[in-house]
Amino acid sequence: MPNREEIAQWLKNLQKHICAELEKADGTSLFAVEEWARPEGGGGISRVIQNGSVIEKGGVNFSAVHGDAPAFLFNEKEHSSQKEKVTNLTFYATGVSIVLHPKSPMVPIIHMNIRYFEMSNGVHWLGGGIDLTPHYVDENDAKFFHQSLKTVCDKHNPHYYTDFKKWADDYFYIKHRNETRGIGGIFFDRLNQSDEMTFEKNLAFWKDVGSVFAPIYVELINRNKNLPFANNETEWQLIRRSRYAEFNLVYDKGTKFGLETNGRIESILMSLPPLAAWHYNFKTKANSPEEKTLSLLKKDINWV
Amino acid sequence: MPNREEIAQWLKNLQKHICAELEKADGTSLFAVEEWARPEGGGGISRVIQNGSVIEKGGVNFSAVHGDAPAFLFNEKEHSSQKEKVTNLTFYATGVSIVLHPKSPMVPIIHMNIRYFEMSNGVHWLGGGIDLTPHYVDENDAKFFHQSLKTVCDKHNPHYYTDFKKWADDYFYIKHRNETRGIGGIFFDRLNQSDEMTFEKNLAFWKDVGSVFAPIYVELINRNKNLPFANNETEWQLIRRSRYAEFNLVYDKGTKFGLETNGRIESILMSLPPLAAWHYNFKTKANSPEEKTLSLLKKDINWV
Repeated sequence: MPNREEIAQWLKNLQKHICAELEKADGTSLFAVEEWARPEGGGGISRVIQNGSVIEKGGVNFSAVHGDAPAFLFNEKEHSSQKEKVTNLTFYATGVSIVLHPKSPMVPIIHMNIRYFEMSNGVHWLGGGIDLTPHYVDENDAKFFHQSLKTVCDKHNPHYYTDFKKWADDYFYIKHRNETRGIGGIFFDRLNQSDEMTFEKNLAFWKDVGSVFAPIYVELINRNKNLPFANNETEWQLIRRSRYAEFNLVYDKGTKFGLETNGRIESILMSLPPLAAWHYNFKTKANSPEEKTLSLLKKDINWV
Repeated sequence: MPNREEIAQWLKNLQKHICAELEKADGTSLFAVEEWARPEGGGGISRVIQNGSVIEKGGVNFSAVHGDAPAFLFNEKEHSSQKEKVTNLTFYATGVSIVLHPKSPMVPIIHMNIRYFEMSNGVHWLGGGIDLTPHYVDENDAKFFHQSLKTVCDKHNPHYYTDFKKWADDYFYIKHRNETRGIGGIFFDRLNQSDEMTFEKNLAFWKDVGSVFAPIYVELINRNKNLPFANNETEWQLIRRSRYAEFNLVYDKGTKFGLETNGRIESILMSLPPLAAWHYNFKTKANSPEEKTLSLLKKDINWV
């Protein structure tokens, strides 16, 4: 088994580093730090920023929790033989989760999560992902974002970008709206070892994903934070944020895991937007930037 | 089997009547009517009001849909023997669903749903409920609301108010917040016949629930619509609305049924608030009206 304390410590350092970079980019607000304990075992450190110049609300959360393994963790097809043993197993999960809601509709929402999971039966894996949700899709930014992720992936495995980009398209998908949450990114889960990769090699990849987050988002902030916007753009931002809330509450597995394992609610739901709007039957205007953005919230767009 | 066309027609008339009463109470806005068809069978009539003097956003929706019965309809314990037959069964469901988000934080949010459901194997039932979500709990209003429901219940069955009030407490419960959505009301499902009640007797009860909605809510509007309020009350309203959105997206079975049976998204999600706020780790002030309201968002309060 990997050294989980070492992994958790690396994540804590990453959390600090990312917050420092985001504070520099924001220029006004600082992260407030709260440590919390989970009654059933473990806890975390929440770092939350609010009312910044750039970030209206955002969290960079670290957690390391453990306890009895809940039944829904078992993939029914792959692990049916283990289902009976559920009461005898314990789990340990540590990760960093980030969601940042910018003040300006011209700056994209971003999400990152990297996590390490193990069970007392020796099963363990890495998971993670970064995805971008622009209120307005800018093709140059989208290309920069995906190219940055592809560079990280290509350094470790020639298939990872293609495979994990598709996984993100499928995962960050709001089925009932038939639209993707944003322009995707990469998503992966249950990485351990394969013919091509040792666990250690995957761990190095996973760390690089965590490390690339700050430079990518700081660049996107600097590109867009001074763009002008008006009320109609803010209104559209509130609508896109409500879609974000729908995804997180209806589909997101991390949210579900948190709610079902009695995680710290405020940390789990820090991903929800500071303000969101649901208009009845909102329609974009023909040939508007909003319509163009909607047309790009689709799977399988090749951005690089 | 009951005459489902007659039930659907009764529901359509109820929908019209309720909208007329609400338009009178609002005094400014009118309901916009849209008919829609579901590709897999059936359809509905959405009536939506927005930007009224009293109602900021609300829907009174009728639907009658049919098609192949989805697997999740079967209660695993009770109907395990029918699970295999799922592909051979069709279903028919008709109902009226209402959610009204008032402009003033002093006027409560209200929800009502009554539904009739049948399957091609002869299984059929009635379900429904009314529940109230005051942004600020007023004990007199709460007592009036529950007493009105109790009177309807008592007319038909001496156990119904006690049983269905408890069911509402359990159903309209936001588990991850450990708080009820509001002050409850009544909730019931799978009513058919029992030792005490024929289906026809339950149908009469069910119709009375639908018919009592308009007088109850119009009274609550008139009691509260002219109360003064300030920004801090509106801010609290936005927070309560975000809890409402959490309940509907995470727990509500009607929403889930709609999303999983490819219902009309705008009609299903008309229940979501026009504007909602998620603050990180919001705390009410000691001895504030907000704190008092939170203390009353609990199960098993006897309001009558």
